[in-house]
Amino acid sequence: MNHDARVAALEIGERLLQEPSERLVNTAFASELTAQTGLVRAVGWVDLAHTLRLASDGVIPAPAARELVAALLDLQVAPESFAPRAEFGDLYTNREAWLTGKTSSAAWLGVARARREALTTAFHLTLCDALCGLGDALLTSAETFSETSLRHKGSLMPDYTYLQAAQPTTFGHYLQTFAFPVLRDVDRVVALHARADQCPAGIGSSNGSTIRQDRWALAASLGFPAPVRHARDAMWLHDLSIEACSIAVAASVNLDRLAEDLMIFASAEFGFVRLADRHARASKIMPQKRNPFALAFVRATANRLIGVQTGVSAAGRTPSGQMDNRLFVYAAAPDAVTSVAEAALLVAECLKDLTFDAARAGAALADRSVCATDLAERLSAKAKIDYRRAHGIVGALMSGLEATGQTLADATVDDVLASLRAADVFLDRKHIQQVVFTALDPAACVAARTDYGCAAETEVAAMAEELKSEIRVKRDALQALRGRREEAIDRLLGEAAAFVSEAG
Amino acid sequence: MNHDARVAALEIGERLLQEPSERLVNTAFASELTAQTGLVRAVGWVDLAHTLRLASDGVIPAPAARELVAALLDLQVAPESFAPRAEFGDLYTNREAWLTGKTSSAAWLGVARARREALTTAFHLTLCDALCGLGDALLTSAETFSETSLRHKGSLMPDYTYLQAAQPTTFGHYLQTFAFPVLRDVDRVVALHARADQCPAGIGSSNGSTIRQDRWALAASLGFPAPVRHARDAMWLHDLSIEACSIAVAASVNLDRLAEDLMIFASAEFGFVRLADRHARASKIMPQKRNPFALAFVRATANRLIGVQTGVSAAGRTPSGQMDNRLFVYAAAPDAVTSVAEAALLVAECLKDLTFDAARAGAALADRSVCATDLAERLSAKAKIDYRRAHGIVGALMSGLEATGQTLADATVDDVLASLRAADVFLDRKHIQQVVFTALDPAACVAARTDYGCAAETEVAAMAEELKSEIRVKRDALQALRGRREEAIDRLLGEAAAFVSEAG
Amino acid sequence: MNHDARVAALEIGERLLQEPSERLVNTAFASELTAQTGLVRAVGWVDLAHTLRLASDGVIPAPAARELVAALLDLQVAPESFAPRAEFGDLYTNREAWLTGKTSSAAWLGVARARREALTTAFHLTLCDALCGLGDALLTSAETFSETSLRHKGSLMPDYTYLQAAQPTTFGHYLQTFAFPVLRDVDRVVALHARADQCPAGIGSSNGSTIRQDRWALAASLGFPAPVRHARDAMWLHDLSIEACSIAVAASVNLDRLAEDLMIFASAEFGFVRLADRHARASKIMPQKRNPFALAFVRATANRLIGVQTGVSAAGRTPSGQMDNRLFVYAAAPDAVTSVAEAALLVAECLKDLTFDAARAGAALADRSVCATDLAERLSAKAKIDYRRAHGIVGALMSGLEATGQTLADATVDDVLASLRAADVFLDRKHIQQVVFTALDPAACVAARTDYGCAAETEVAAMAEELKSEIRVKRDALQALRGRREEAIDRLLGEAAAFVSEAG
Amino acid sequence: MNHDARVAALEIGERLLQEPSERLVNTAFASELTAQTGLVRAVGWVDLAHTLRLASDGVIPAPAARELVAALLDLQVAPESFAPRAEFGDLYTNREAWLTGKTSSAAWLGVARARREALTTAFHLTLCDALCGLGDALLTSAETFSETSLRHKGSLMPDYTYLQAAQPTTFGHYLQTFAFPVLRDVDRVVALHARADQCPAGIGSSNGSTIRQDRWALAASLGFPAPVRHARDAMWLHDLSIEACSIAVAASVNLDRLAEDLMIFASAEFGFVRLADRHARASKIMPQKRNPFALAFVRATANRLIGVQTGVSAAGRTPSGQMDNRLFVYAAAPDAVTSVAEAALLVAECLKDLTFDAARAGAALADRSVCATDLAERLSAKAKIDYRRAHGIVGALMSGLEATGQTLADATVDDVLASLRAADVFLDRKHIQQVVFTALDPAACVAARTDYGCAAETEVAAMAEELKSEIRVKRDALQALRGRREEAIDRLLGEAAAFVSEAG
Repeated sequence: MNHDARVAALEIGERLLQEPSERLVNTAFASELTAQTGLVRAVGWVDLAHTLRLASDGVIPAPAARELVAALLDLQVAPESFAPRAEFGDLYTNREAWLTGKTSSAAWLGVARARREALTTAFHLTLCDALCGLGDALLTSAETFSETSLRHKGSLMPDYTYLQAAQPTTFGHYLQTFAFPVLRDVDRVVALHARADQCPAGIGSSNGSTIRQDRWALAASLGFPAPVRHARDAMWLHDLSIEACSIAVAASVNLDRLAEDLMIFASAEFGFVRLADRHARASKIMPQKRNPFALAFVRATANRLIGVQTGVSAAGRTPSGQMDNRLFVYAAAPDAVTSVAEAALLVAECLKDLTFDAARAGAALADRSVCATDLAERLSAKAKIDYRRAHGIVGALMSGLEATGQTLADATVDDVLASLRAADVFLDRKHIQQVVFTALDPAACVAARTDYGCAAETEVAAMAEELKSEIRVKRDALQALRGRREEAIDRLLGEAAAFVSEAG
Repeated sequence: MNHDARVAALEIGERLLQEPSERLVNTAFASELTAQTGLVRAVGWVDLAHTLRLASDGVIPAPAARELVAALLDLQVAPESFAPRAEFGDLYTNREAWLTGKTSSAAWLGVARARREALTTAFHLTLCDALCGLGDALLTSAETFSETSLRHKGSLMPDYTYLQAAQPTTFGHYLQTFAFPVLRDVDRVVALHARADQCPAGIGSSNGSTIRQDRWALAASLGFPAPVRHARDAMWLHDLSIEACSIAVAASVNLDRLAEDLMIFASAEFGFVRLADRHARASKIMPQKRNPFALAFVRATANRLIGVQTGVSAAGRTPSGQMDNRLFVYAAAPDAVTSVAEAALLVAECLKDLTFDAARAGAALADRSVCATDLAERLSAKAKIDYRRAHGIVGALMSGLEATGQTLADATVDDVLASLRAADVFLDRKHIQQVVFTALDPAACVAARTDYGCAAETEVAAMAEELKSEIRVKRDALQALRGRREEAIDRLLGEAAAFVSEAG
Repeated sequence: MNHDARVAALEIGERLLQEPSERLVNTAFASELTAQTGLVRAVGWVDLAHTLRLASDGVIPAPAARELVAALLDLQVAPESFAPRAEFGDLYTNREAWLTGKTSSAAWLGVARARREALTTAFHLTLCDALCGLGDALLTSAETFSETSLRHKGSLMPDYTYLQAAQPTTFGHYLQTFAFPVLRDVDRVVALHARADQCPAGIGSSNGSTIRQDRWALAASLGFPAPVRHARDAMWLHDLSIEACSIAVAASVNLDRLAEDLMIFASAEFGFVRLADRHARASKIMPQKRNPFALAFVRATANRLIGVQTGVSAAGRTPSGQMDNRLFVYAAAPDAVTSVAEAALLVAECLKDLTFDAARAGAALADRSVCATDLAERLSAKAKIDYRRAHGIVGALMSGLEATGQTLADATVDDVLASLRAADVFLDRKHIQQVVFTALDPAACVAARTDYGCAAETEVAAMAEELKSEIRVKRDALQALRGRREEAIDRLLGEAAAFVSEAG
Repeated sequence: MNHDARVAALEIGERLLQEPSERLVNTAFASELTAQTGLVRAVGWVDLAHTLRLASDGVIPAPAARELVAALLDLQVAPESFAPRAEFGDLYTNREAWLTGKTSSAAWLGVARARREALTTAFHLTLCDALCGLGDALLTSAETFSETSLRHKGSLMPDYTYLQAAQPTTFGHYLQTFAFPVLRDVDRVVALHARADQCPAGIGSSNGSTIRQDRWALAASLGFPAPVRHARDAMWLHDLSIEACSIAVAASVNLDRLAEDLMIFASAEFGFVRLADRHARASKIMPQKRNPFALAFVRATANRLIGVQTGVSAAGRTPSGQMDNRLFVYAAAPDAVTSVAEAALLVAECLKDLTFDAARAGAALADRSVCATDLAERLSAKAKIDYRRAHGIVGALMSGLEATGQTLADATVDDVLASLRAADVFLDRKHIQQVVFTALDPAACVAARTDYGCAAETEVAAMAEELKSEIRVKRDALQALRGRREEAIDRLLGEAAAFVSEAG
């Protein structure tokens, strides 16, 4: 890529009479170029589709088009000689400068098209691809959550709110908490994919082009079901980027919660789970350490993405038609999507490999404080007293036990009877013996929760089954989306090759 | 609401032996209560549905249930005696304390249910309602954008990028830029509504309830098509709030861009539009001022919502089962949705009332710099030269004109010929006379953009027609959603009234 | 406040020929007015200073000034008749309308001054006041952290990284972690106070005023040491608001960390601390619960403030001279400052009232895994082997013990010798007996950490002493700042009263 | 860097029995390593200081220390053989693995020190360096603002609020708006530098080290005036990172405002300024374009930094002692600081090279609407009428003129007299002739604003002088800070070289 090619690509000499300042190159140009790295492959497809179309319409003369397409195909294989540099401008002009070194027909590349059209079309392709990847990763994680939940549908542990033991549950029911949001995330991914899967190409610039380019055919050649309807919207829309980042944040916050929980459950003091060594990291100073590095990374990712979401949202808030809406966003939005995909797979891997310590989890239920609700509910029913009163009786019972260093696990039927009497409730011992016995058995508490969505094993199993079937359906849908694109790109590359090899 | 009712509602005396500290009341309690203000009406419906259901299941004895439902109906009409105060805790316990003042049956309110269940169900109802309102507002704004675009499909003005005149367009085509994102916003609103339109009620707590409550029937009684599938997910999901804020941000950024443009177009230096006095504000010191206050407010709203989105996202990032996920969010998410609805209606009103100054907009086209692309494209085609070359010729022509204080509008056919010759392109005068004439006529430039989505009048009209029909379809869908809820609530209130009046 | 006063205050009829639209009133006007609520008292002082100054300069005729000052003094006592309403515009015009009802001299209020000048000066006063409050609150919390640290300088517990026990420490050394950042926060508060403690008054509008107003005297009358140097900067600066929110975020993140730790330490599984009941909240369904509500609130506050910081930063990013830079910010910045002050006091109160359970904290040290570093360091020194090797030896020792269900606490001198031998390190038993004994004693580990800033009791005591003396110095400085302002305001009100009572 | 070195550096085989999973390496390890790139040079200094100190204390045997220091010095010159890879862990363990390839003494590197201590100390050095760079860049930009303001102290133009012409000003007074915040930014930079210029080294881990390391001497050897006081604070403090990002945001928002203004002023419709071609970019499709790319980049930077600030703030909000507080932040905070430094220099360069078009700026004053305030103020004084009335009279006058297509520039003395009469104010023509003449002369309006900080030339000149002298003082202070560090590092490297070359 030589000086002339550079000057040509940067359009210096006619209207702009100075080369860009060194500082501009090292800041703005360099930042923009870096942010466009992820678009490299897709912009090649876009250039091919554009050139073939305008050749077929007779706008680019066939011989020139043939040379240009040949050079574009060469460039597509990522030749070593293509090493984009900020002094050659953005990705688009870097490519143009490289192409100019191959053929003077490169001067046709920009006909009927702003660079923004090319890059934005490439952005849509890149975003769609990243979204398919995210969809897949999320489904994989949901699958792991669901399978693990099934394995642990009988693994008792406390459910926590405020990190205070609340009621008995199972590790299985607990884990499903994170599977259902993932399915919603996938729905969001698919919905955004549909919105992003529309083609900006063929509009020339914001107001359209005088050179008709059959936008539907262009769209189809890149595997889009349709063009973006309105030219200026196509050029400048920002909502898809905000939406992409927001999906990434929502998904990462869900993953983060599980990671934060697991980090607590993995502490020696809880001891419910143990991460595999391959997801831990040693300390350089403390020989005993097995730090849950993978989990900390998931939290770091969530926090980083919250920042990216903010920056991308703010980047859209300008008068319309401003390129800085796109500057960092070309990278930030797909990267956010990809980052959360990686986090999802990492969490899934951790979950698959960790061990659950039933004894430690069971020990956390030992004082039976988690059974207080069940006791109150059963007393309310049995004694026909209102729930507030039953709640108070159990609360007072527990405070009394605590005062003597005991817990609910130590409560005898007599203790309960005394507490009832203190609240002017008089029941026969025989009426409540079974109540107390059942209420204070965590397994029985869980088994009694058979209502829709609750923690009983049957429900957990039913939900796991539903998750499995939903995952299958969604995975097929995603696969179809990917397949359509791949097919189109294959066809496009085939047509390009055929076009080049046609007799002149 | 007296001291006893307070102590009862706050459950002090049995397990908690101290009243909340004054500071806790004035900070945490007060903040939470304020954030729950918007849930007041909906939580009343939820309490009614809950009480009726548990009465029908025999959990709450009929006479008590009857008294409680009667009190709940009284509370629903927003009696003056209900003035929530932080010392009575959150909205839930404030209500309970008030109800306790009416009937001792209030002690049954909390049976088989965490307060979180009640409030979260109310949150879903409130969010759904806000989303319907946003959908409506957005459609109204899209309608205005579209209708105004039709009125101005022939109103020439420059299209800008970087605030530099780019190519000729019309105010009509320009305005549609903001209509299409609105339709996508509405799609997002409807999708989120579907996700939020699932009922948490009947789960008791995170792990479910031992008291079966027929969650489908409960959901139906509040107008939800279904329960949230998983109990713990129902209790703690955060993704809907992130999504709601993100939709608000995306929508507000779109509105903001129009507002920012209009603020520039309304400057004396541009002078394209003039806001109605009713959307302006006077200066207290400068007698000449007519400040576009409405537009500044729209920008302020977008910025504020970017912050809200961030805060809500961050609020979800904790271990799971933490009430602070909800503390401020109960207000923040619906408020964000409602704020952008108001901004949309305000922008629409401004647009409806503003005047477009065709003369000033036309004057901005006078130097014909916006026609440079058309000239280059036509020269490329006519002279059969590559576009880079044509681009360079026009660039050099303009630099030459500028050097003598002229503009492209002053370019004669001879000037063009000379520029071509300087680039070794030789054409007959007769070949380019028409080219130059057409290329330098902004109206002709626009008229030539007839491709799909472009600025020609026919396309603008076609898009306006499509917008209109899409808006109609979406409005009907929203109306159906609203209708279903209203019907259910009417039915619920009717059933409650009937239940109260049943013979004891 | 009647219709005429409203029309006058809103300047309708001459230049603006329409009243503001109902929607504008209900959105933009209402939002702005709400955001200015916190400025009410300060703007009264500003109006008084302004009126007295212009009276003294002869710009406002003495009799009119006297009437206006009298009315302003009346307004300052917050009369019931002053109930700002959005239809009367912002706080400034609401006040003007009220004053107009008292005296026609209110028409002089706006001479030589944009409303922005009045409100921005009030904002500086309000922000300075909030900052003093924050400084005080932070110092109070630091004091509590420091005093509690002293009380617990011998209370052993594990130090955690990744929630994995790391090395032995004391609750005292641990708590000081949160005291030092608070002192830095206070330094930031004082530095910002100095920047905000400059007076915008007297500039008229961005470019200054033709009516000289002696800005230094005006500043002094409101207790500012100096005017803001540059008129346009004074009118539109945004950096102070960003800085205020950022200080709030930094301070709240520090408090949050302590709160998040305490929430974990307060879990039954850790059991190191127990919150006082007055900082907890009961569950409505679970009788056993004592939820650490205060701590959850602190985290909620940090998250909310992160959002506020974002929104305020984004609000400044416009062309210059835009009122939406200020719209929500008048409230957001002081509120952020005040919110974190409240959180600091709440955390301090919780800390003061909580109990530390030395037995439970000690139990967490029982397996001596926290002593691994000390053992490795001592072995390295004694055996003259490099640290990597010593680290490996201890790591292998622990893995070996773990394989047989033992921990480092179970390690005998023979075990250690065997591990050394396995790594080809040969030592006499007598050489390491003491090493092992000391290394595995958590108290000894802590006692050995006597270096600057480390956990030994003497160092904790020394740091507590330093904290105490720094807190005293900073508190005096803050008190002086407050005192200067209060004195000035007293003088101003005195002068106003004297002026009113002067013979006509 | 071979397998053994890797296993050693990652401490696998004793406590961790598995190598990190491929996914963990490719996500968490890779992300962390990338984020530490900027610490490379500084961590080398830290390792040298650490090794020399522990050698001098006799902890590391002299011969081993000599080999290790020699290898560290080799590594410091950035040898090609040092190519960090994620599979070797973070920067610290990558370095260790490389050093292990040179000498077995590398196994002494980690004695008495967590990796966090090394990296965090390097972070302080890196942040301090970036802050000095930002200080310099900001001062350079302030210098340019000030010098340009002096050159344009007589260049008339309108001052705008809401983009509506407000009052007459000069480009000089306008530009100083952006200089004063820069000085405040520099004050913030210096204050943060003082806080960051404290040394974490020598603490071992959060609770301190049993091996005393003379932290003051360590600090001095790296050019720090003092150690961070508290060991655990030193290890985990997050406030400096939040503060760094917030300073970056405040500074970038100030620069952004100027950039946004210039973008508007550079539009053809305003036409006040013209950017140099070297700060513009051509369009690939539109030959006439000279897009102000540099300015768009400044806005993009501000938006990006708002996101970074958010992400960094959120990253701190965890329980304490979590490495994800640092993961991305090691890069994010210094990068934010450096990004805004670059933006400041770019803005300064743009400003230095742009041309101001006095004619176009003057034309914007032609209708004299900007003179309305002066007219009202002078009428108020002359006619002794309250300001509200004067304001109304001028407002009505302008509305009247507008109705006949005229502007205030067309107002005759008779027009003014008629307006006064219509408001029942009766003045002689001779009394107001001069008033009207002066009030409607923008130059006279500016000249009359001689008060402190106002737009009169003398004031602008005085402020430029003050800026100049403040800049000089601050630049010297920054230079001293830099100098102290450079000296220390030179000394450290000298000592290291001397130590290596000492006879064995």
